[in-house]
Amino acid sequence: MLVNKKSYKSIWLDEADDTVVKVIDQQKLPFSFEIEDLKTVDDVCSVIQNMTIRGAPLLGAAAAFGMYLSTLELSSHSNVKDHLANAARYLVSTRPTAVNLSMAVKYMFDKISNENDLAKLTEKARSAALSFCENEIENCRNIGVNGLKIIESIRERKAGSTVNILTHCNAGWLACVDYGTVTAPIYLAAEKGYDIHVWVDETRPRNQGARLTTWELGQNNIPHTLISDNTGGHLMQHGMVDIVLVGCDRATIKGDVANKIGTYLKAVAAFDNNIPFYSVLPSTSIDFKISDGLREIAIEERDEEEVLFVNGLTDEGIKNVRICPEGTKAANYGFDVTPARLITGLITEEGICRADEVEIRRMFSGKI
Amino acid sequence: MLVNKKSYKSIWLDEADDTVVKVIDQQKLPFSFEIEDLKTVDDVCSVIQNMTIRGAPLLGAAAAFGMYLSTLELSSHSNVKDHLANAARYLVSTRPTAVNLSMAVKYMFDKISNENDLAKLTEKARSAALSFCENEIENCRNIGVNGLKIIESIRERKAGSTVNILTHCNAGWLACVDYGTVTAPIYLAAEKGYDIHVWVDETRPRNQGARLTTWELGQNNIPHTLISDNTGGHLMQHGMVDIVLVGCDRATIKGDVANKIGTYLKAVAAFDNNIPFYSVLPSTSIDFKISDGLREIAIEERDEEEVLFVNGLTDEGIKNVRICPEGTKAANYGFDVTPARLITGLITEEGICRADEVEIRRMFSGKI
Repeated sequence: MLVNKKSYKSIWLDEADDTVVKVIDQQKLPFSFEIEDLKTVDDVCSVIQNMTIRGAPLLGAAAAFGMYLSTLELSSHSNVKDHLANAARYLVSTRPTAVNLSMAVKYMFDKISNENDLAKLTEKARSAALSFCENEIENCRNIGVNGLKIIESIRERKAGSTVNILTHCNAGWLACVDYGTVTAPIYLAAEKGYDIHVWVDETRPRNQGARLTTWELGQNNIPHTLISDNTGGHLMQHGMVDIVLVGCDRATIKGDVANKIGTYLKAVAAFDNNIPFYSVLPSTSIDFKISDGLREIAIEERDEEEVLFVNGLTDEGIKNVRICPEGTKAANYGFDVTPARLITGLITEEGICRADEVEIRRMFSGKI
Repeated sequence: MLVNKKSYKSIWLDEADDTVVKVIDQQKLPFSFEIEDLKTVDDVCSVIQNMTIRGAPLLGAAAAFGMYLSTLELSSHSNVKDHLANAARYLVSTRPTAVNLSMAVKYMFDKISNENDLAKLTEKARSAALSFCENEIENCRNIGVNGLKIIESIRERKAGSTVNILTHCNAGWLACVDYGTVTAPIYLAAEKGYDIHVWVDETRPRNQGARLTTWELGQNNIPHTLISDNTGGHLMQHGMVDIVLVGCDRATIKGDVANKIGTYLKAVAAFDNNIPFYSVLPSTSIDFKISDGLREIAIEERDEEEVLFVNGLTDEGIKNVRICPEGTKAANYGFDVTPARLITGLITEEGICRADEVEIRRMFSGKI
């Protein structure tokens, strides 16, 4: 999508040197647009762990490129199998919630594991990582096409007046390789000239909504308004939200959805107000092996500093401000699980389905 | 309650000069403990409007003192009736949601309107303002006694293990004159040596939870943990919340409760998880003339700057940090309305009742 009117992806191979992977430093956004070079598996793991990059689909793409970079570290003395297995384990361990990491690693193994010649292995890994990314982009594009139908049906019902969409966190192109998941139908609706408006939850504690979603919507000329995470319920009660679209870090076969902490609160409010609530995701985010999200999805606990401080821009540059008394303790759960019963449906690259096991099994029969 | 181990109220008359009203500057908390002098009605209105003081019961007390200060501005040439009516109108207009302002003003008029002698009028106003405050303190103490029973019943059910209370915003002694509403039963439970723990919502955009509730609980040695506003639903899903206690800016005869924005989201999540959800309030916060909170309570819209920036402490002092791109627009609704159907009950100075018209009419038959 557009940044300063130029088209970008969130991860790509350097055109001049294809042993270098490039990513946008999402920690510095929206205050500064900087690009970081990744040359090793360690580089990839560290940008995942320190949140330079985030978003389940992008993490998958990064893991794929990570496997490619790991092949560049091989020599004729290497135990190839062990080396790749180590790289894979390291990559998968960086974030416990995102299933995309292990799926990407598995995709890479499927494409390269039969190759014994090192040069060919590297070339296969490079092309597999690129095709993994192309698949992600194609998936997002298809998600957009499918989600657009729902926006169009609301638009019809409202006789062309503004369609108000509420979203949480950033499930935008920055979180994917391009288009995004939640943002894909939004970008396509805007392309068609539809009158849409997005309520953007700031998404404490890391404020990905305030920092990233506002930034990418602004760069792509989508009307939007920032709100505190407390506000969505009030807007829903007063008819100011037509649909809630949220991303997904991991879904179960029954349609439970783990997503950024706070998603569940919006789901239960949307349910209370009869407002459609969709999770928008590539099928790679569905973990077909688990069914009970509340019991089976491990929720990452992050550093309390993210709650105790808020990061932002002052006259003297980017700073942390403490928002509470010295010595205050905080808890910081990264995600929550929205039970399928609160979810109107899943918008995926394959189509839209209800959040229920029968429909999910039918839609993804080829992938289970 | 305690500040630096010394007992304070949130508003009081200067001991040395009873034409001066003192308040704690709540804007500077928790980073600096400063006391401000109020000498005129304008001073009172300005500390209400600029949020130096906040909290429905404290605003009522301030309005009562404001009426007292207005009597000090009278001379023998004044049109007493017009002067007091102007002061009252100005005080009531400072915050549209808090019904306490107009109730306090009415209380003052009832006590002073028959007095024609200026000196006696002033003396009556002074003593009426003080008795208004004493009533508020007594109400909070009784609220505490009533709320304590609920905490005790949960404690019994849990066989003495920690009672986890979730609260939103600051309905503490800072918001009242002393004790607080939500905090009154908490302080009494701690006095009894019960094992309690409070989850404190940070309460964006103004972070009264992070700044004030943590501060007053810390000063009074109550175990607590700060969380982002997004977190409560997850905690409830996992059995980590036994009861939700929130304040009230204005309640209706049917038991709908207007409170800090985001309260409704916690109520609907508590309902979804079968967790008791109580609003804790003095009966002065009930507006017996209105019934439908969603339709009849005007919700204050505040400056978007509160959403676009976060205020906190850096090495260089208290600063605002911008959390979003330059040019981003924000919406800032101060309150939301929780419908009675989601509220387990109201904890008041008179007792505990269900959030329903029959029970409210019965409990407050003398006041309607």
